[in-house]
Amino acid sequence: MKLYYWPKTRAFRALWMLEEMRVPYQLEFVNIRAGAQNDPNFCRVNPMSKLPALEDGSVRVAESGAVLLYLADRYPECGLGVPLHDPARGRFLQWMFFTGSCLEPAMAERVTGAPGNTVSFGWGDLGRVEHAIESALEEGPWLLGDQFTAADILAASTLQIAFIAKLIEPQGVLFDYVERSLAREGHERASAIDHREAERLALKPHVGVAHGAEESRP
Amino acid sequence: MKLYYWPKTRAFRALWMLEEMRVPYQLEFVNIRAGAQNDPNFCRVNPMSKLPALEDGSVRVAESGAVLLYLADRYPECGLGVPLHDPARGRFLQWMFFTGSCLEPAMAERVTGAPGNTVSFGWGDLGRVEHAIESALEEGPWLLGDQFTAADILAASTLQIAFIAKLIEPQGVLFDYVERSLAREGHERASAIDHREAERLALKPHVGVAHGAEESRP
Repeated sequence: MKLYYWPKTRAFRALWMLEEMRVPYQLEFVNIRAGAQNDPNFCRVNPMSKLPALEDGSVRVAESGAVLLYLADRYPECGLGVPLHDPARGRFLQWMFFTGSCLEPAMAERVTGAPGNTVSFGWGDLGRVEHAIESALEEGPWLLGDQFTAADILAASTLQIAFIAKLIEPQGVLFDYVERSLAREGHERASAIDHREAERLALKPHVGVAHGAEESRP
Repeated sequence: MKLYYWPKTRAFRALWMLEEMRVPYQLEFVNIRAGAQNDPNFCRVNPMSKLPALEDGSVRVAESGAVLLYLADRYPECGLGVPLHDPARGRFLQWMFFTGSCLEPAMAERVTGAPGNTVSFGWGDLGRVEHAIESALEEGPWLLGDQFTAADILAASTLQIAFIAKLIEPQGVLFDYVERSLAREGHERASAIDHREAERLALKPHVGVAHGAEESRP
């Protein structure tokens, strides 16, 4: 299994997932600073020229949510997903789609200062998005209750960026949730790899918004 | 199986899916013009106060992509999804996530006039999104090749709105794809129901951008 990867990008989410699962994989480096994401070979893997993307035998999959859902279903024994016929499958899918379809677009609106449109846009606005996550965490500690899933990897890693970029106040239920997520051993292993590779590839250190949210997130 | 629904909203995608599958379901009307989406009972189904949402026994699921993926997996015999262990599952998931995570946010950026950020945002920009869909349709006639799937329902219904709202030029490969999709019997049945219910509930007719993209898409 091959993860198309570059440190300090959205590919980190898939790296975290793989380190939670502890399954064998290799990293295929796509130097997004040198434009390698526009190479025709990579475009055949992901026509959006974005990371992460994954190859598993003849399977190719891109889009963060799709990569993590594929992995969760591929390795049910790792317990990071919910099986097809489990009544919690619906909620699990809902939260798998939520980060890419609601949290990220609402954050982008806040970044660009766009007025948003709570009626017509699928994500409402950032306030509604925060409220929805907080509602889900009322039972906690994870979005699906007792079970930590791939949906938490997507949501927590994205909320962390929202905190760093000062789009959401790092406090209360959401802050505790992110702290709890980042304290997991799987995250620590993935984070160590991400930092090591960034140093090896001589990237600038990960500081603040300019680098984390703007410059290098393909 | 109960679909939370209101005519001329994003719930249409789920209605189209159900009519493609021809499985039994009932419509539960959520009057979004009277604020019923904020009713605490409905918020327990979807804390985002948005349509569509679905109940199936004890299963609850919201987010368009999640609802359609749940249905595709729930009724594999209807052939609108790709089974877990099929090599095309990866691409299927990618396109299931694509509409909500890429196409819709890129359309919203165009609507609001926000500058976008092709490096940091997961959807790049609307040009890249159009190109990705066109690339996938090179083999065609559907995103997954010969098989029409739930991913086509999401993409085609959203592209149709992009045409009506003049966000994407209705021409070429994308126009043909939408025409081909809307000509399906499942779409015709769903469309007849949507129009009938809109008339019965005395909504204004579906004309232009103001209604289609702005006013009534919860």
